[in-house]
Amino acid sequence: MTAEGKARDMTKRHDSPSGEDSLIARYFRPLATDPGAFNLDDDAAALKAVGEDIVVTTDAIVEGVHFLPNDPPDTVARKALRVNLSDIAAKGALPAGFVLTLALRGMEEAWLKPFAAALGEDAADYGCPLLGGDTVSTPGPLMISITAFGRVPQGKMVHRSGARAGDRVFVTGTIGDAALGLDLLKGGPVALALANDAAAGDWLTSRYRVPQPRNALAKAVRAHASAAMDVSDGLAGDLTKLCGVSGISAVIDLDSIPLSDVARDLVSRGVVGIETLIAGGDDYEILCTVADDRVEAFAQAAKSAGVALSSIGTVVAGSTVPKFFDGQGSEIVLKRRSYSHF
Amino acid sequence: MTAEGKARDMTKRHDSPSGEDSLIARYFRPLATDPGAFNLDDDAAALKAVGEDIVVTTDAIVEGVHFLPNDPPDTVARKALRVNLSDIAAKGALPAGFVLTLALRGMEEAWLKPFAAALGEDAADYGCPLLGGDTVSTPGPLMISITAFGRVPQGKMVHRSGARAGDRVFVTGTIGDAALGLDLLKGGPVALALANDAAAGDWLTSRYRVPQPRNALAKAVRAHASAAMDVSDGLAGDLTKLCGVSGISAVIDLDSIPLSDVARDLVSRGVVGIETLIAGGDDYEILCTVADDRVEAFAQAAKSAGVALSSIGTVVAGSTVPKFFDGQGSEIVLKRRSYSHF
Repeated sequence: MTAEGKARDMTKRHDSPSGEDSLIARYFRPLATDPGAFNLDDDAAALKAVGEDIVVTTDAIVEGVHFLPNDPPDTVARKALRVNLSDIAAKGALPAGFVLTLALRGMEEAWLKPFAAALGEDAADYGCPLLGGDTVSTPGPLMISITAFGRVPQGKMVHRSGARAGDRVFVTGTIGDAALGLDLLKGGPVALALANDAAAGDWLTSRYRVPQPRNALAKAVRAHASAAMDVSDGLAGDLTKLCGVSGISAVIDLDSIPLSDVARDLVSRGVVGIETLIAGGDDYEILCTVADDRVEAFAQAAKSAGVALSSIGTVVAGSTVPKFFDGQGSEIVLKRRSYSHF
Repeated sequence: MTAEGKARDMTKRHDSPSGEDSLIARYFRPLATDPGAFNLDDDAAALKAVGEDIVVTTDAIVEGVHFLPNDPPDTVARKALRVNLSDIAAKGALPAGFVLTLALRGMEEAWLKPFAAALGEDAADYGCPLLGGDTVSTPGPLMISITAFGRVPQGKMVHRSGARAGDRVFVTGTIGDAALGLDLLKGGPVALALANDAAAGDWLTSRYRVPQPRNALAKAVRAHASAAMDVSDGLAGDLTKLCGVSGISAVIDLDSIPLSDVARDLVSRGVVGIETLIAGGDDYEILCTVADDRVEAFAQAAKSAGVALSSIGTVVAGSTVPKFFDGQGSEIVLKRRSYSHF
């Protein structure tokens, strides 16, 4: 874009293609399967929308901050797209496509090739084609910024603000595995505790590196949830945000929060406390509230979609932060609910 | 987003707002004037589209690469948005909104405040409200990635690929000022030549720092242009791209390329050559082709819109790169047409 340092716009074909241009064409053009991507030959893409709203979300991941420098490029690609797909799912929308900004120190084919291949696989699997992008040079850490699009019928995006007293609180999958995976990768207590259990360690690592967004549940969320969001910054903190915007509170049964066998074992051995799990990040599960008369239909829809669902508490009136109770009915006061980096 | 380093999602309200959250709310929420931004209180925005296509473009700028570390924050904000507005204009679309990813080393209020204020002014002036965003921490250079949206009637986005032999080639504004401004800021030959002309230097600097996207011409481009793109990587190189995608070539009259008085003077004094101007970047003017029978109406529409327009050549059949001729009818062979950083 400047005479000083060039941007390689993926949507632009360059004259007498340089090595970089042909790399971009070779690796990213096959991902641009949507007709509105114009084969990455134009300045912009066009999204069709007939009787729908386009849901827009954006999330960036930075090397050394949101992923580790030695994370494999294929997992970095999947994480970059999936953190956005998770937002699309939580809003009750179906994926429509995405644009990609890649900030690279250089064009390393050994990195780009598996990155693009995995991104293409996920784009195909989730029905979310590449629509365009921009590749820029940076002297700093690798950064991938994705803006993803979804479609919902007009006015039907599911908000954070619709929770009502009496609604049940649900969460998908299991909570805290990614935080444990990160602890392991950083050589924390989990690494020591699982030194002799490579399978468990690998599984936790994959939970950190490769989220499993719950797009299969999107239609059910749209049909039944009064409020929803994805859990990215810690279940406790994210629930607190949902309650704040909805103007309500909640009571949560700690024993009902779904844990994987590995996580449950690490808690029971005292390796980590429950806070590590419910105030840890990177779960990318769906947190939602459902009115009593919809609970059965919602649970049935989740079952049909093959998505594990747990009822973890109840929405209550009030403006206090959500309260967490243990199996004996004692309130557990959390020292932290999520993280702040700055 | 991870337990290691947190993202501050602008679309998310955090519990017991930290200083950073309230900074984001204070500076960016006022920019979220579109109802589909949901006051930045949700995971995603919703773009309405009735009988329209949503045009999507994305461009990132990196400190030290696309802007200089000592560029004022207000000009950085304007440049980040305007390079995207320029794409929207060239596609014949009207601005609909944008999402912002800010990668910051820290939350410096002294930087954020003027940045957000200028971004808000431009968003209002161009009718392009903030819809959402993500703020991430980076140990590296400041980076601003924007994805911007425009609206066009269904199927009416103007492409690069529509140029036909016989069409006239037009460009808006003046070409090369930004490249001269960058040369000046870097202490190159232009700095020396204009050492005693602060006004001219300031004007060139502003042309580099603050593009003037031609959104006023968007409707005329849509009504009359057979192909269009914005000039961001150098007029010669960008025209070559347009010709390549359209499957045609062009002959350009170098004397017809619009230059500012300052640029013309620097060329005539031998401070810079014409290549510096037409292979330099950051013009953010519109390059387009118009069929003969539309030329008069297009010129009239540009005049009504108050956008300076120059006819610089003719589209011809063939697959060679565009040729440039001087006033004596001699072909000038360019050593370079645009830049590649990687």
